[in-house]
Amino acid sequence: MSERLAPGATVGILGGGQLGRMLAMAAAKLGLRARVFAPEADSPAFQVSEKPVCAPFEDIAALRRFAEQCGVITYEFENVPAHSLAVIEELRPVFPPRRALVSAQDRLAERRLLQACRLPHADFEFVAEAAALEPAFTALRGRGHATAYLKKLRHGYDGKGQLRLEGSQDIAAAQDWLGREAAILEAAVPFLFESSVIAARARDGDIVCYEPARNTHTHGILSESRVPSGLPERLIADAFAMTRAIMERLDYVGVIGVEMFAIGGDKPDSLVINEIAPRVHNSGHWTLEACTVSQFENHIRAVAGWPLGSAERHADARMVNLIGEEADAWADILAQAPHRSLHLYGKAETRPGRKMGHYCDLTPLNRAPSAES
Amino acid sequence: MSERLAPGATVGILGGGQLGRMLAMAAAKLGLRARVFAPEADSPAFQVSEKPVCAPFEDIAALRRFAEQCGVITYEFENVPAHSLAVIEELRPVFPPRRALVSAQDRLAERRLLQACRLPHADFEFVAEAAALEPAFTALRGRGHATAYLKKLRHGYDGKGQLRLEGSQDIAAAQDWLGREAAILEAAVPFLFESSVIAARARDGDIVCYEPARNTHTHGILSESRVPSGLPERLIADAFAMTRAIMERLDYVGVIGVEMFAIGGDKPDSLVINEIAPRVHNSGHWTLEACTVSQFENHIRAVAGWPLGSAERHADARMVNLIGEEADAWADILAQAPHRSLHLYGKAETRPGRKMGHYCDLTPLNRAPSAES
Repeated sequence: MSERLAPGATVGILGGGQLGRMLAMAAAKLGLRARVFAPEADSPAFQVSEKPVCAPFEDIAALRRFAEQCGVITYEFENVPAHSLAVIEELRPVFPPRRALVSAQDRLAERRLLQACRLPHADFEFVAEAAALEPAFTALRGRGHATAYLKKLRHGYDGKGQLRLEGSQDIAAAQDWLGREAAILEAAVPFLFESSVIAARARDGDIVCYEPARNTHTHGILSESRVPSGLPERLIADAFAMTRAIMERLDYVGVIGVEMFAIGGDKPDSLVINEIAPRVHNSGHWTLEACTVSQFENHIRAVAGWPLGSAERHADARMVNLIGEEADAWADILAQAPHRSLHLYGKAETRPGRKMGHYCDLTPLNRAPSAES
Repeated sequence: MSERLAPGATVGILGGGQLGRMLAMAAAKLGLRARVFAPEADSPAFQVSEKPVCAPFEDIAALRRFAEQCGVITYEFENVPAHSLAVIEELRPVFPPRRALVSAQDRLAERRLLQACRLPHADFEFVAEAAALEPAFTALRGRGHATAYLKKLRHGYDGKGQLRLEGSQDIAAAQDWLGREAAILEAAVPFLFESSVIAARARDGDIVCYEPARNTHTHGILSESRVPSGLPERLIADAFAMTRAIMERLDYVGVIGVEMFAIGGDKPDSLVINEIAPRVHNSGHWTLEACTVSQFENHIRAVAGWPLGSAERHADARMVNLIGEEADAWADILAQAPHRSLHLYGKAETRPGRKMGHYCDLTPLNRAPSAES
C-alpha cells in the first residue's frame, strides 16, 4: 500500500470531460493539485487545472511523462485502454484498480464478476459470433424470456452498443448490426425503475454508501436522478450489501456506481444489477448539493489515501441533466428557482445528446428561518 | 448597464489568493471561464484557472491586455490600486464598483459613507498628522471614551495598521508609529461579540443576505465564524437593513461583507458597524457548505449579470480558520469528524499568521435517516 498524498501533491486524472472537471475541482478544494490527460484539445477539465496534457491514450511516452509528475493516477471514464493503465501502474499507484476497469470494459467479464459475488443479474447467453445469436435467443426463450437485448461486449454507454430483440424476425438485422463483434444476449428485465448506488471505498477498506437514487432515462441517456428513490429500507440495505460485495471482491479504491433494476409488482420487492461503473457517476451528481462530502471529494479522498467523509444527505434532491440544447435555457432555469444549483460544463459546442450541464433542486429536510431580507 | 455574460465568457479576477481561488471555482461551476491576474507567481488561484497573468497591479499594459480578454472584471481584495481599476473600467465593466473599493481603502471615506447612510459607527476623530493625535485623544476622552484605537487610513486588515491607546502615556509611541501617515482615532467599542453580514446585490438591484455569523478573532485574525450568531431576530433585521442601505447607496454589484459589533449588557441590544469589505469575506466561508448557493457563486452570478441564488441555510455551521501550522494537522482534522468539510488553499509555504485553509462543521437542521452502510 502506497503512502497517502500530502497537500500540494498532484492527482493525475485520465479523461477531461465533466467528470474529470468536477474531480479536479474536488482535488483543489482539498489543497491537492490536479493534472488532466485527455485527447481532446477543448476538454472541459483543462479549464480548471494546471499544465494539461493533450494526447491520445495510446501515446505511451506522453502517458509516462504525465505519470511521473503525479503522486497518484485516477480516471474519469471506463474506456481508458487497460494497457495504458498497465503502463502507468509501473510508475505510480492507479485507483480504482485496473481489474475493476477491465471488468467494466467487458460485459462478459462484468457478468462473471457478478456471478463470482453471487449477485442477481439478468439471465444471459454469450454470443461469440453472429452465427451464435439464433441458438442463444432460442435458449433464452426456452427459459421464459420473450424479449432480449443484444449488447456488444465493449464500449457501451448512454444506451449505445445495444439492440432490442422482440422476436426471431429481428435476428437477421441484429446479426448484420453485430458484424464480427462478440456480445451477450440478455433477457429484458421488466423493471419498475432503475436505481443506483454510489459508494466510496478507502485504501484502508472503509466504505461509505450514498442513498440509492431513482433514475429516469430518455432515449437511453440519464435525464433525472432523485433521492429518496422510493426503495424500501430492506432493499436499500440489499443495495448497500451488493455494492460492498463488489468493492471488496475487487479490493476497490475510489467511487463506484452500481446501476440496479427495482423489480416487483406494484412495489419493488427485489433488485437486479444492471451495470457497474468504476468511477464517479452521473446519477451521483446530487451529492454535490445534498451531502457535505460529495462523490467527487470522496473519490479524491479515497485515491489520495485520505479518510472518507460522511455520505449522509441533508436534503431531498432532484438532479436533472441538461442534454444538448436544453442547456441554452440556463437563464430561465436559474430564474425559476432561487434554491436551484446549476452546473455548466464549459463545453463550447452544443451537440444533440451531449451532456452540457445539470441542475439540482433541493428540498432541505427542515429549513432554517428565512434569511432572505 | 452592460449585457449579462453568456456561459463560456470569461470573468477576470484581480488577486490570486484563496478568495480568488474560490471565486474561480464558482465561475467554473457555472460554465464561465476564470482568468486570474496576480503579482505572486505561486498564487493559489492560478492552480484552478487558465492562462494566469503574473504581473504587478501597477503594470498598466499587462492590465489592459488582461482586461481585453475578459467579459467582466472583479477583485478578491480591497487593496487593488484604485487607479488600476480606473484603467480597466475604460475597457470592461468592473464590479463591485470602484466607489466601493475607494470607500473601503480609506477609513475616513468609510466613516463618511456610514455617516451619509446614517448608520451607527464608533465615535472618532480624524488625525491628519502625528501632532493632531493629542488633541484628538483629549476630544474623545472629553466625550467619555477612555480607550481608543489609532487606525491608519490605508491597508489595514487582520488587525494590521492599528494601535490601542489606553491613556496619554501611549501617545508619544503612537506618534512614532504613525510617522507621516494620516489616521483616525476611534473610540474603543465595548462589544459583546463581532458579527458580520455577507450579502449579494445583483445588477438589477435584487439583494440576498446570508444570516449574520458570530466571529471570534485570535491575535487580530479571524479564527472562527458560527451561525446562528445569537443575535435576536430584531437585530438580524437591523443588520440586513444596514447592509442594504450601504449597498444601495453605492449602487453595489457583487458580494459585500459588513462587520458589526453587537453591544449591550447581558444580551446584544444594538449594532455598530466596524468595517466594510467590498468582496467575498472570510466570515462567509460557511456558506459553501450550509447554503445551496455560496457567497462565491452569488458574487460571480452578480458580476456576470445573472439572477442571484437563495441565501437560506440548511444547517447550523461552524467555520474554523487554519492559520499557519494549524493546517499541518489536516489528517487528524478530517479523521475526527466525517461530516467535516476541509478546504486547503494550495499554499506551498506555511508562514505564521498565514491563512492556509479552513474547515466547516455542519449540524443539519434535521438529518435524513443514515445512509452510512
